[in-house]
Amino acid sequence: MLTDEASVMYRVEPGVKIDLTTQDPSDKRLWENGSKSVHAELMLEKLDELKALQNLLFAEGKQKVLIVVQAMDAGGKDGCAKNVFSSMDPQGVHVKAFKSPHEEELAHDFLWRVHKAVPAKGMIAVFNRSHYEDIIAVRVKKLFPEKVWMNRYRHIVDFEKMLTDEGTKIVKIFLNISKEEQRERLQARLDDPAKLWKFDPGDLADRARWDEFMVAYSDLISKTSYDHAPWHVVPSDRKWYRNLVVAQIVINALKGLKMEFPEVKWNPKDMHVK
Amino acid sequence: MLTDEASVMYRVEPGVKIDLTTQDPSDKRLWENGSKSVHAELMLEKLDELKALQNLLFAEGKQKVLIVVQAMDAGGKDGCAKNVFSSMDPQGVHVKAFKSPHEEELAHDFLWRVHKAVPAKGMIAVFNRSHYEDIIAVRVKKLFPEKVWMNRYRHIVDFEKMLTDEGTKIVKIFLNISKEEQRERLQARLDDPAKLWKFDPGDLADRARWDEFMVAYSDLISKTSYDHAPWHVVPSDRKWYRNLVVAQIVINALKGLKMEFPEVKWNPKDMHVK
Repeated sequence: MLTDEASVMYRVEPGVKIDLTTQDPSDKRLWENGSKSVHAELMLEKLDELKALQNLLFAEGKQKVLIVVQAMDAGGKDGCAKNVFSSMDPQGVHVKAFKSPHEEELAHDFLWRVHKAVPAKGMIAVFNRSHYEDIIAVRVKKLFPEKVWMNRYRHIVDFEKMLTDEGTKIVKIFLNISKEEQRERLQARLDDPAKLWKFDPGDLADRARWDEFMVAYSDLISKTSYDHAPWHVVPSDRKWYRNLVVAQIVINALKGLKMEFPEVKWNPKDMHVK
Repeated sequence: MLTDEASVMYRVEPGVKIDLTTQDPSDKRLWENGSKSVHAELMLEKLDELKALQNLLFAEGKQKVLIVVQAMDAGGKDGCAKNVFSSMDPQGVHVKAFKSPHEEELAHDFLWRVHKAVPAKGMIAVFNRSHYEDIIAVRVKKLFPEKVWMNRYRHIVDFEKMLTDEGTKIVKIFLNISKEEQRERLQARLDDPAKLWKFDPGDLADRARWDEFMVAYSDLISKTSYDHAPWHVVPSDRKWYRNLVVAQIVINALKGLKMEFPEVKWNPKDMHVK
């Protein structure tokens, strides 16, 4: 079935070693045909579905959902938040953007600030950047020696396994853009006064290390994709396609939870609203 | 000007003693005429405006906005979250629903858990229920003696003054529904299996104390409406009207902040995206 394929097609199977440079960021296989308006209409349907499923998750109040979103700069993390996750009830969805750790955070282990932000029952937490930066950024920018970040693969897998065993569904998404697409998006920020604030000169230094990032991300995704917490590599050069795929992956994950409206412990017929 | 009137018309002026029972919950003066589709179209415009202003608040990253929403059960607090606040970037807006305080919260002063949830720079926090429950519910349900909740008016005013002086814009909204409208909404929850989970038998006990709540709320609003943190009593029997008025009040508050995109400390022309 077409809609299930988003989760399957872009999922990184456990144990498989992937190479990001062989993945096509402009792929649009799932919704190859159709005009812009057809895709917009389809997106509205997905958002309605997402909204209904999140309402059910909240109503049931038993299960927790964690969505981790990683990408290179300008990869579309904020765009996903605005265009996909904003469709849901803001009371049930918390988007947490992880910045460079501040002093108190650095004084603790790298999972300390992350643990504080995991979702409660009935809630969805979206991580815009995450504990994965503590491997990626640390490795590429050589912030700590290899033995520090090397151990973190296992710590992350263990941590995510604990969360899963305790009732959290984890979905991990890497928004895969091409280096050329990043160039265009960064340039667009420089050219538009209303977007200038999003430009960070430091992004250029990261961009200069593009190839190292691709190696580090390929490694990371290969080493931390598990059945209980799979990675998905989403082609993200086309924003409309990225939004559709991300929405569909989350829809599939929520559907898999087999949620039900909670049973009430009283008989509605006994309730008289006078 | 029509749009500014939402903030003015429904604002409770400092020092004025209001009586909620004289306020018409089905008032629709501001948008008296026009069909359903005209109102829907207007709402979309308001949501776009709200989204743009919130984006600017976030980009500027200097000011903080706190929106407090109070109402009787089924008064539309969740509806506002879903229909008004969900239009904005979820990364910049946190909706915090305050439930009955749990053990650790009760072990602290009543403002302790509230203080933890106030907005940071560039952020909007929406309180669905708030520290005002620590007067209202406590008073009507007689949870603590009068001398406890009586002192809290001043503590709240002092606390909100501190937040304002430290850079937070506070907007307080009471969604005013009629007792008959509440009856219909509670009954609708009982009649719809997908809404049954929202029904709390305890709501009936509160409903039986409707008049006491109106007295307590009238007192509360009269005593805690200040120029720096004004209350607005929004007619809320009609959901479409409530949404328009709430959106407009928040729009006006954001416009009043005179925000600007931040100046960057480098010359965009010196940035070369290779």
